[in-house]
Amino acid sequence: MIFLTRRATFSASHYYWNEAWSAAQNEQVFGKCANRNGHGHNYTLEVTVAGEPDPVTGFVVDLKWLKDVMEREVLAAYDHRHLNLEVEEFKAGKLVPTSENIAIAAWKRLEPKVNAAGGAQLNRIRVYETPEIFAEYRGEA
Amino acid sequence: MIFLTRRATFSASHYYWNEAWSAAQNEQVFGKCANRNGHGHNYTLEVTVAGEPDPVTGFVVDLKWLKDVMEREVLAAYDHRHLNLEVEEFKAGKLVPTSENIAIAAWKRLEPKVNAAGGAQLNRIRVYETPEIFAEYRGEA
Amino acid sequence: MIFLTRRATFSASHYYWNEAWSAAQNEQVFGKCANRNGHGHNYTLEVTVAGEPDPVTGFVVDLKWLKDVMEREVLAAYDHRHLNLEVEEFKAGKLVPTSENIAIAAWKRLEPKVNAAGGAQLNRIRVYETPEIFAEYRGEA
Amino acid sequence: MIFLTRRATFSASHYYWNEAWSAAQNEQVFGKCANRNGHGHNYTLEVTVAGEPDPVTGFVVDLKWLKDVMEREVLAAYDHRHLNLEVEEFKAGKLVPTSENIAIAAWKRLEPKVNAAGGAQLNRIRVYETPEIFAEYRGEA
Amino acid sequence: MIFLTRRATFSASHYYWNEAWSAAQNEQVFGKCANRNGHGHNYTLEVTVAGEPDPVTGFVVDLKWLKDVMEREVLAAYDHRHLNLEVEEFKAGKLVPTSENIAIAAWKRLEPKVNAAGGAQLNRIRVYETPEIFAEYRGEA
Amino acid sequence: MIFLTRRATFSASHYYWNEAWSAAQNEQVFGKCANRNGHGHNYTLEVTVAGEPDPVTGFVVDLKWLKDVMEREVLAAYDHRHLNLEVEEFKAGKLVPTSENIAIAAWKRLEPKVNAAGGAQLNRIRVYETPEIFAEYRGEA
Repeated sequence: MIFLTRRATFSASHYYWNEAWSAAQNEQVFGKCANRNGHGHNYTLEVTVAGEPDPVTGFVVDLKWLKDVMEREVLAAYDHRHLNLEVEEFKAGKLVPTSENIAIAAWKRLEPKVNAAGGAQLNRIRVYETPEIFAEYRGEA
Repeated sequence: MIFLTRRATFSASHYYWNEAWSAAQNEQVFGKCANRNGHGHNYTLEVTVAGEPDPVTGFVVDLKWLKDVMEREVLAAYDHRHLNLEVEEFKAGKLVPTSENIAIAAWKRLEPKVNAAGGAQLNRIRVYETPEIFAEYRGEA
Repeated sequence: MIFLTRRATFSASHYYWNEAWSAAQNEQVFGKCANRNGHGHNYTLEVTVAGEPDPVTGFVVDLKWLKDVMEREVLAAYDHRHLNLEVEEFKAGKLVPTSENIAIAAWKRLEPKVNAAGGAQLNRIRVYETPEIFAEYRGEA
Repeated sequence: MIFLTRRATFSASHYYWNEAWSAAQNEQVFGKCANRNGHGHNYTLEVTVAGEPDPVTGFVVDLKWLKDVMEREVLAAYDHRHLNLEVEEFKAGKLVPTSENIAIAAWKRLEPKVNAAGGAQLNRIRVYETPEIFAEYRGEA
Repeated sequence: MIFLTRRATFSASHYYWNEAWSAAQNEQVFGKCANRNGHGHNYTLEVTVAGEPDPVTGFVVDLKWLKDVMEREVLAAYDHRHLNLEVEEFKAGKLVPTSENIAIAAWKRLEPKVNAAGGAQLNRIRVYETPEIFAEYRGEA
Repeated sequence: MIFLTRRATFSASHYYWNEAWSAAQNEQVFGKCANRNGHGHNYTLEVTVAGEPDPVTGFVVDLKWLKDVMEREVLAAYDHRHLNLEVEEFKAGKLVPTSENIAIAAWKRLEPKVNAAGGAQLNRIRVYETPEIFAEYRGEA
């Protein structure tokens, strides 16, 4: 079994806010991230698939194909977007766009496409909010 | 003469938009950056001062002092902010918050404080929007 | 389950020395690291916690809280210190401050605080001595 | 159990080509990588061993020894070489030198030497083709 | 005056060889780089242009345009190529493809296109062969 | 004219202390760096030489030779050393080993050797104390 990983970056805005709370409560819990004008990050999305290398091509998956899947399923929706205002899974306060939740959301977007292609399985998603902070999701055990 | 540099990072949102243009014109010139919900970056601010090392301390400037100046003069205003909506020099469409203009704006914020302290002079500002793109300003010649 | 990671850096001195050995034996085993004047590194401490994101905040843990725990429990003791001379677990030759042992020591410092907070559990510690060398500890199985 | 990792880099050329296919078929599957003049990368080889730190030295393995093993077993054969033309496991079209296959090949070169030394066991190999793409192999389960 | 920089990467093969010398002489001067099977690198091309930010757009140049120029003029010719065998300025032993000469060659490719566009002037080219080695060219003074 | 740069790293300990001052005064000025047990860094030494590429070899200087000069003149003296206790230019309180002073000291060590070799001239020294802080020296104007 080989674990093959590809990284891509996207730039997005977000804020943390819970509509059920007062402004003061939001600021107490979320600090600077509660600023509803939004702030942003250069996110790194790191996608790992697991499988056996094809004996003829030496590929677990075609990395060009994986790049296209990542761009079509995640980057097209997230890059140069405001996550709270424009991205389906986060908008209207459905889900706070923390790195934790972005990792799970990216898994849900990628897993059906990667696994349906046959051969390799989605194994792990990492989302870096900064080089110092990242969240990792490996699916439901 | 020694050139001493310190880096810091801030996370901010921005968009590119010219009020005098139609939406179509803004999109043609600014592309994805014309999305008025904003998108964001982890910016790196790199500040270089030039001077002679003090013969007693070996310091061109006290790096702790430089960090405080950078935080007070730039990061306090820019970090976790929407540059177009909340930062004096960019708001109300006064100035498009490109890396070029952010570098000049940071120079204007830092130069009086650094140079007034005596000894070292502000020499160069770099603003990295991503690890692949950066703007540098050295003041008016 | 989400694995959430935060990095921090500290600068410290250390040397490798076994009091039970002759100087020649120490030099043979530890090479340049046996220099008892000490040498130093910019260490990176990488702390991973595992848990479910809170449905309201989207947090596995509050990253500001994690930063404070890391600073109070590890960095306050290790940063700008000589590990062999000033840090409890290494001093008086008790333990050689290799990256391996620093990772275990940091785990022992962090695990009670992280796990007592409820929710997330300490999952993994990485200590980078240089960008090329790092040790990882995941607790006792 | 501690997982201790060391990185090294090597510069090599390769191309992707299957002798059983036409040129058109090779180009369709392998794209730019099918150019038989070869192209190249600065590869990073990341080797992880697992074991208990020696109670006297604090070492899982002697990192100087690990560096020597990596240089003798892998870098001496791969660095400044054309993988398809000069490296035993890839030449004469035996195996396509993808990152996946390089990771497995490096494992086969390192595992007997690392494990025979006693104490630590080879745990994981990562091969970075670029900072954005890497393959990981953990041996046969 | 603002100095605006954009980076791009390309993967290429090369070797160092002087047809006028014996194999022994080539090996003595060029060492491992004299292997005529070629070896390769992930090169980073760093292009800096200098000019005044446009008062309306805030751009020294449109970074999308600069990316296209870099891809069309340099990357299309160098990426996934063997510099000695396929790239005009180096082939048939005309020029040894050192980082120094690649920087000058990239300047010659880019300067007419950048400068003809008006406004900004090509200011500096950097070519990183590895993260540890780079050559910089600023044109003829 | 080409500017050719090579980087190398060294790990060293240091502290900041002025014998003419009281302990309180040292702590006030130097903060955590006044701890006389020392602390340490992974320093990066970046050496730039300037010259014309040789028309036959394409080299400004032979990078292998430059590496040897850097190792012999600087790293042999600084790596795995305590700068205040073991390095000629800093010991006995002669000079505070700040990045500023290390850059000047490395210049003095390298300039005679580089310039005597003919062809290229030492152009610039950078010393990174951390990835966030560096000092640059270009010689006396």
